[in-house]
Amino acid sequence: MFTARDENFSERVRESFGRQGFMNHLGARLLSVAPGRVEIEVDHSGDLTQQHGFFHAGVTSAVADSAGGYAGFTLFPPNSSVLTVEFKMNLIAPAAGTTLRAAGQVVRSGRTLTFCNLEASVLTARGWALCATGQQTLMCLNDRPDR
Amino acid sequence: MFTARDENFSERVRESFGRQGFMNHLGARLLSVAPGRVEIEVDHSGDLTQQHGFFHAGVTSAVADSAGGYAGFTLFPPNSSVLTVEFKMNLIAPAAGTTLRAAGQVVRSGRTLTFCNLEASVLTARGWALCATGQQTLMCLNDRPDR
Amino acid sequence: MFTARDENFSERVRESFGRQGFMNHLGARLLSVAPGRVEIEVDHSGDLTQQHGFFHAGVTSAVADSAGGYAGFTLFPPNSSVLTVEFKMNLIAPAAGTTLRAAGQVVRSGRTLTFCNLEASVLTARGWALCATGQQTLMCLNDRPDR
Amino acid sequence: MFTARDENFSERVRESFGRQGFMNHLGARLLSVAPGRVEIEVDHSGDLTQQHGFFHAGVTSAVADSAGGYAGFTLFPPNSSVLTVEFKMNLIAPAAGTTLRAAGQVVRSGRTLTFCNLEASVLTARGWALCATGQQTLMCLNDRPDR
Repeated sequence: MFTARDENFSERVRESFGRQGFMNHLGARLLSVAPGRVEIEVDHSGDLTQQHGFFHAGVTSAVADSAGGYAGFTLFPPNSSVLTVEFKMNLIAPAAGTTLRAAGQVVRSGRTLTFCNLEASVLTARGWALCATGQQTLMCLNDRPDR
Repeated sequence: MFTARDENFSERVRESFGRQGFMNHLGARLLSVAPGRVEIEVDHSGDLTQQHGFFHAGVTSAVADSAGGYAGFTLFPPNSSVLTVEFKMNLIAPAAGTTLRAAGQVVRSGRTLTFCNLEASVLTARGWALCATGQQTLMCLNDRPDR
Repeated sequence: MFTARDENFSERVRESFGRQGFMNHLGARLLSVAPGRVEIEVDHSGDLTQQHGFFHAGVTSAVADSAGGYAGFTLFPPNSSVLTVEFKMNLIAPAAGTTLRAAGQVVRSGRTLTFCNLEASVLTARGWALCATGQQTLMCLNDRPDR
Repeated sequence: MFTARDENFSERVRESFGRQGFMNHLGARLLSVAPGRVEIEVDHSGDLTQQHGFFHAGVTSAVADSAGGYAGFTLFPPNSSVLTVEFKMNLIAPAAGTTLRAAGQVVRSGRTLTFCNLEASVLTARGWALCATGQQTLMCLNDRPDR
């Protein structure tokens, strides 16, 4: 549905992701990078839990926010950077699983603002189960290289 | 403005917070626990950054979500637990500072649902600067002890 | 995807919609009622505009809120009523068209809370164009008949 | 807290409000216009109700959205116009009252984006009761006069 203006979009996302100390601290990895869509995965560990041992909503939100931010970034021009303006998460089920996967999908990408849908699922004994849905607004900062 | 129904509210919050592996992984600490209001603080480190070295929006959201969740929890009856239904963050300024502080403040606490306002600030050379505002909906699970 | 527990779900939605004085004041009509999904339509008029002559965001939000609320209501048991807990709208394009159509789609329906996705489109010279996306949380009030 | 850059801010808001066909259709009136803060009021009538006779959440949202939009607009330069990017409403109590009052308060006004807090109250037999809180993001369109 979307075409990247910068042919190096994937490299640019991967390089920027590598500089996110927090994603590294979570043990999160980039699963896929396509024009307008990015997926991030993280395995469960005791470092990522809320008080009942499930993934903390802050982990779900963090990987969903990064997934959406980089989904938008794939469509931005070279020499730009991305800023999250706001996001909203509905935590529709406990994030009880062994792996958490978040996807950011661009819905509309304008000159200044980009809107994404966010989704997060957990891997359970019965397969992947949706645990959160979200919305996000991003801003493109032109002539401000991400690096 | 609010009165706790459980006189052990503070102890209960501190014990539950201690079980949040993720808050420990972030290096976050409980700053204050009052009926309807909780504050959490975390110091900057390279483990908590987005690609430009500021606090990652996921860190801001995680501590704000925990602050709001425990703000609500202070007003819940004994033998209950708390669930975040949804939350929304407006990231109104870059979280560029040496310490991040988030506050959760109950606006209305009903039998089933509780609504909170969230705020996060960063300590800069000029003092504390507001970097995010949010809203949160919590659910009280009765007869399901947090522990 | 969803099955209604009350075989009279459609009748119940239509009767309740008829009592929403505001939907009548807008000139809104129920377009479709299926288990977990409801669509509402309204034609453009000078009574529904913001300052530039487009549909007011308040109109878009009102029909989207009603569509989502009734989408949830289709899955509720008899003798219950529905309450919007919160909703969020991203206004991704100006609502410039001759007709506005909003759809509410249930994502997850629990015993107490139901989560919906909302979408609104406008009919333009080139066909239907998405103008807003949203999220909504509903509450089911058991043993409190809507009527 | 805020200073208007355009000394004619109040006149500009009032003139623009007058062109909102929808605010007129609701019977809404501007109650106050100050730099960074606008209040709008509307009286209850059978034209504004949901199925139980209370103010429809769409009415609450519409007046809150307009209040916030014009709160931001008071701080914009001449020859600009205002666009709602997104907003979020928590409906914390039934809007059961004889008058509904919504306030939009700017939290931060940047060159491109402005963030507002929204509040709505209803007049009950016991006085004003808060029924909704919200957040809103606005965009300033420079060199695009509102008229």
